[in-house]
Amino acid sequence: MRNRLSTDQYTNGILAGDRLILSRAITLIESRHPDDQILAQEVLATVLSQTGSFRSDSSIRVGITGVPGVGKSTFIETLGQYLTGLGHKLAVLAVDPTSQRSGGSLLGDKTRMETLSMNPNAYIRPSPAGDSLGGVGQRTRETMLLCEAAGFDIILVETVGVGQSETVVHGMVDFFLLLMLAGAGDELQGMKRGIMELADALAITKADRDNALHARRAQVEYRNALHLFPPTGTGWFPPVLTCSALTGDGMETVWQTILDHQQQTTSNGHRQRHRQAQQLAWFRSLLQYELANRFYTQPGMRDRLTAIEEQVQTGTLLPVPAVQQLLHEAA
Amino acid sequence: MRNRLSTDQYTNGILAGDRLILSRAITLIESRHPDDQILAQEVLATVLSQTGSFRSDSSIRVGITGVPGVGKSTFIETLGQYLTGLGHKLAVLAVDPTSQRSGGSLLGDKTRMETLSMNPNAYIRPSPAGDSLGGVGQRTRETMLLCEAAGFDIILVETVGVGQSETVVHGMVDFFLLLMLAGAGDELQGMKRGIMELADALAITKADRDNALHARRAQVEYRNALHLFPPTGTGWFPPVLTCSALTGDGMETVWQTILDHQQQTTSNGHRQRHRQAQQLAWFRSLLQYELANRFYTQPGMRDRLTAIEEQVQTGTLLPVPAVQQLLHEAA
Repeated sequence: MRNRLSTDQYTNGILAGDRLILSRAITLIESRHPDDQILAQEVLATVLSQTGSFRSDSSIRVGITGVPGVGKSTFIETLGQYLTGLGHKLAVLAVDPTSQRSGGSLLGDKTRMETLSMNPNAYIRPSPAGDSLGGVGQRTRETMLLCEAAGFDIILVETVGVGQSETVVHGMVDFFLLLMLAGAGDELQGMKRGIMELADALAITKADRDNALHARRAQVEYRNALHLFPPTGTGWFPPVLTCSALTGDGMETVWQTILDHQQQTTSNGHRQRHRQAQQLAWFRSLLQYELANRFYTQPGMRDRLTAIEEQVQTGTLLPVPAVQQLLHEAA
Repeated sequence: MRNRLSTDQYTNGILAGDRLILSRAITLIESRHPDDQILAQEVLATVLSQTGSFRSDSSIRVGITGVPGVGKSTFIETLGQYLTGLGHKLAVLAVDPTSQRSGGSLLGDKTRMETLSMNPNAYIRPSPAGDSLGGVGQRTRETMLLCEAAGFDIILVETVGVGQSETVVHGMVDFFLLLMLAGAGDELQGMKRGIMELADALAITKADRDNALHARRAQVEYRNALHLFPPTGTGWFPPVLTCSALTGDGMETVWQTILDHQQQTTSNGHRQRHRQAQQLAWFRSLLQYELANRFYTQPGMRDRLTAIEEQVQTGTLLPVPAVQQLLHEAA
């Protein structure tokens, strides 16, 4: 990267809340250049004690997901304006593993959040497209830490409600909010099964005008459904809310719900344990990723692997001898 | 293992449906002795073309889960008697990662299925306790293949509805059945969240006598709830059934549901793709396991790992440098 700053310049700038330097540091994190990577890790290590990794009370991390069309951007825009109005400093990040293919379906198009993107207490940053070192989410996690060090006390992580990204985002936040449309059915097509049971709250969007009654009916249905789910094991019972990005109705309740969850999980110790478990899981998945990476990138291994996987898939070779063959060749 | 047979003796015995030799071959699979492992893989490779790994029409694999107290054993006993009555040959296996601790909470106590265990067309086999080569489920998968080669056309895989085992079992069967009690609540304590959304059908057990009305009410509630779930993407809509192991009511419907699913997923090609994807996933997880295992078993690595994980957990060290340190030391 050209015009690289020194570690001190980055860290001082970040800790002083300088948005320009924060942005440049995030770009450093996203860079694939080895020198940039080294510098990025130095910067991260230096600010670590000021992040939510070390001090779990320094921020609230909220994941927001929902299928395309549910109104994630307008929801975040409205909630964001409400939160900055309360005096909070808000960072909005996105994990979008599909953006490389779709050409940036999420925050790549910043203009979708016109008001919020001009708000001095909000910082909007799309995550890099495609896979990155350590897989989906690696850079978003590090970006989150830099934002916390820069004084943002609320981090919203947006993701589309399809593929693997919700699970990844669920693994990096304190509170996982699932946005839903009234009237289940076709619009749930593509939503990953199991995601409803991961949610800490459901919010039914577009609960306004002609749709208000539908939304209220859906609220009752989802409440009954969630009541049949296994308990969360944390003492928290996921509520079903309604809201409207158009009128702003329900935003206060959404935020109050997040605060209630925060308060409850802080007092019962779950929050601290949860963050520690997330950090450990991040480390372990990265280690697995690197071990696999070292193995897969050996000369000729990709072709060898493709051939073996073909045999395994069609049932002509069993996994145990397949793995033994591969490991023996690589030895 | 003493009195080891030759590969030919094992394979001929298995293919002839000799239950004694089948049992000895499974014991071979479960053995940790390297020579036994080699022989076991030879036997598996020889019978492979007669298993459901290669011929997905040779068996129906059904996973059955539910919390303790839901009545899994009596359900399997009653369903099993019904199926053998139809002329099927039935193998009942179990994945129970907790059995080492609990002293065999599942099939370890065979007497729980008294009638079925004396049925000549049923074969009941508890899976080995604790972790095994390749993690939970590895040996159960191989045992399933031997049973298929021995002519068992229905494989039931039982698991407790807690921990990781349901996910593992879900990854090795065609149809995943979740047994539930009428009246959700405390009895769901310990059930893993997300498991309901993995089920291909729910069956409410103990729908008899005073409980019949409760069961019917629960059926309606769960039906409404499942209706709100995202679609499965396979064209299959998970039904909610009721049954009684006491009266036998509902067993026919449970089996017909499994057959309907079988027929639908066979005709739309999902079944074949699903098994191939499962085989690939098994291979990949085993490869990951072996790569990690080679790494973790280096001298001193366990202690080093414990120390580093402690730092990562408390937020004083970030995952990227932590992994780099470990890999550098191990280089």
